[in-house]
Amino acid sequence: MIPKTLEWLGGKLRIVDQRALPDKLVFWDCESCSEAAEAIRTLAVRGAPAIGIAAAYGVLLGAKRDRGAVKDAIAELASTRPTAVNLFWALERMRETAERFADLPDRDFIAALEREARTIHEEDVRNNRKIGEFGQSFLPERGAVITHCNAGAMATGGHGTALGILRSAREHGKEMKVYADETRPLLQGARITAWELAEDGFDVTLICDSMAGALMRDRAINAVIVGADRIAANGDTANKIGTYSLAVLAAHHHVPFYAAAPYSTIDPKTPSGADIPIEERDPDEIRELPAGRRAPQNISVWNPAFDVTPAWLITGIVTERGIKKAPYNF
Amino acid sequence: MIPKTLEWLGGKLRIVDQRALPDKLVFWDCESCSEAAEAIRTLAVRGAPAIGIAAAYGVLLGAKRDRGAVKDAIAELASTRPTAVNLFWALERMRETAERFADLPDRDFIAALEREARTIHEEDVRNNRKIGEFGQSFLPERGAVITHCNAGAMATGGHGTALGILRSAREHGKEMKVYADETRPLLQGARITAWELAEDGFDVTLICDSMAGALMRDRAINAVIVGADRIAANGDTANKIGTYSLAVLAAHHHVPFYAAAPYSTIDPKTPSGADIPIEERDPDEIRELPAGRRAPQNISVWNPAFDVTPAWLITGIVTERGIKKAPYNF
Repeated sequence: MIPKTLEWLGGKLRIVDQRALPDKLVFWDCESCSEAAEAIRTLAVRGAPAIGIAAAYGVLLGAKRDRGAVKDAIAELASTRPTAVNLFWALERMRETAERFADLPDRDFIAALEREARTIHEEDVRNNRKIGEFGQSFLPERGAVITHCNAGAMATGGHGTALGILRSAREHGKEMKVYADETRPLLQGARITAWELAEDGFDVTLICDSMAGALMRDRAINAVIVGADRIAANGDTANKIGTYSLAVLAAHHHVPFYAAAPYSTIDPKTPSGADIPIEERDPDEIRELPAGRRAPQNISVWNPAFDVTPAWLITGIVTERGIKKAPYNF
Repeated sequence: MIPKTLEWLGGKLRIVDQRALPDKLVFWDCESCSEAAEAIRTLAVRGAPAIGIAAAYGVLLGAKRDRGAVKDAIAELASTRPTAVNLFWALERMRETAERFADLPDRDFIAALEREARTIHEEDVRNNRKIGEFGQSFLPERGAVITHCNAGAMATGGHGTALGILRSAREHGKEMKVYADETRPLLQGARITAWELAEDGFDVTLICDSMAGALMRDRAINAVIVGADRIAANGDTANKIGTYSLAVLAAHHHVPFYAAAPYSTIDPKTPSGADIPIEERDPDEIRELPAGRRAPQNISVWNPAFDVTPAWLITGIVTERGIKKAPYNF
């Protein structure tokens, strides 16, 4: 059973603290805007749509404490992470709502903000189901896909975008095997996707990010499906580091490559990918290993120690006898 | 200062136990053939050329204990790892030596085996220097390369193959910046290459394997240089998992891709890559994180959280309004 990623409960924002997954299921009841901002900044809640929803509830928490501080709440939440545009989109909706109902008494003003935050949340789940429905149409009755990072229920209000397509495909009786990239450095694929899909009864196999190329060559892969953090007007798509490599590998192997995201991820004001700000994070995320964070023990794994690079991709083989070039004939 | 990867010392094979790097510098004095086999099997010593050298000394250790057991020693060592052909090549040289000198008295027989093992070791260092000299010729005066896993001093008798090229380039006054793939699952890039190069004063930056594609697009990379575990007669090259992805990415970005290896890595009896056996390892190497294994603290790191996939590589963008295909115009 997968818990609710986010829930408005007793006047607080309850989130699953995803940093503890899959070892422990820890809930975090955010009581203030600053706590919600902290949850986003520390990746306790992550995934572009989920970040947007958390930010909407964060504005509500700020307004409940001091209705005059809505602007400050929005500014604080906007400063948490730069790339996912859903964050700014949700904050803009909350800002507009606050403006529209600025003349209402406290209680009604807060009720209007709560209604808007809940609407953003519910719309996201509905949109995910539509994305799933549209997306499942390109999948065969039986097959295999590769996904990267986590674009599942835990990255959204529920159902998921990339993983929502797999859930919808299953509702249509389709049987898709899923290969999940572990997604270094923070291992969202191993910790969240593998766990989420296994909990949901999917046939999921964990691989290291570097194995996707060999996998596409060695096994029949029907599609690569990923989420998105921001889609520029021209379709250039920002997503978790490693997505670009996966897209190049998919093109090389003639595997269709799909990004799945709600319209709130599309930013028409960003003309192309070159205009998307890319967050750079703490070097220690790579230097140090996140101890205790690992995939569930029951997950299947593909772990080849080597792969083979065909001669035609090799510019030269350097030996003690000189640099050999193709055609190689040893 | 980099220690000697392998050393024949006081009648024992002293190796650096590379599983403890970079946290601790631990030496392992192998006193028997079984210990040498264990060191190879557990990756205490790794890298195709170093495996070959360790195996040669392993036969010597076996013969010293019981000269009648050379055949058994060879069989035990041959069963440790299937992919690196240098292992079988070195064992064959030791077998031939044992056969040629079968009529000598014990002392001279052992001396002959010791001479052969030492020769294999010394030849490897000389060959690495030649590989380095040939390979450095394709590098510019100043630039940057990407390498994967560890094909350095620690993977060989000394100097290194891929990293030997960088060492030789420096002897020619060339200044090469090195990006080291961390190389999941066992992190030889983070633990060994980053450490080895930093110890040696190189400008080294650690990246996750999934970042190499974005790096090739965003920064000027002059070459990808890797080692090899077995090269088939047609030039197909087996190397650490992830090498193939890197080669596809290099071709896509028009970055030259070189494999560096001694002739002992070439297996003319293997017609093509399809005939190379690929070792599959314990799933827990991926499920569990190798605690305490990490890059040195002083290593530079590039850690972008996202990358951008250009629209032309995306087959379709799935939203709640349907599947959009290129040209995208949001």
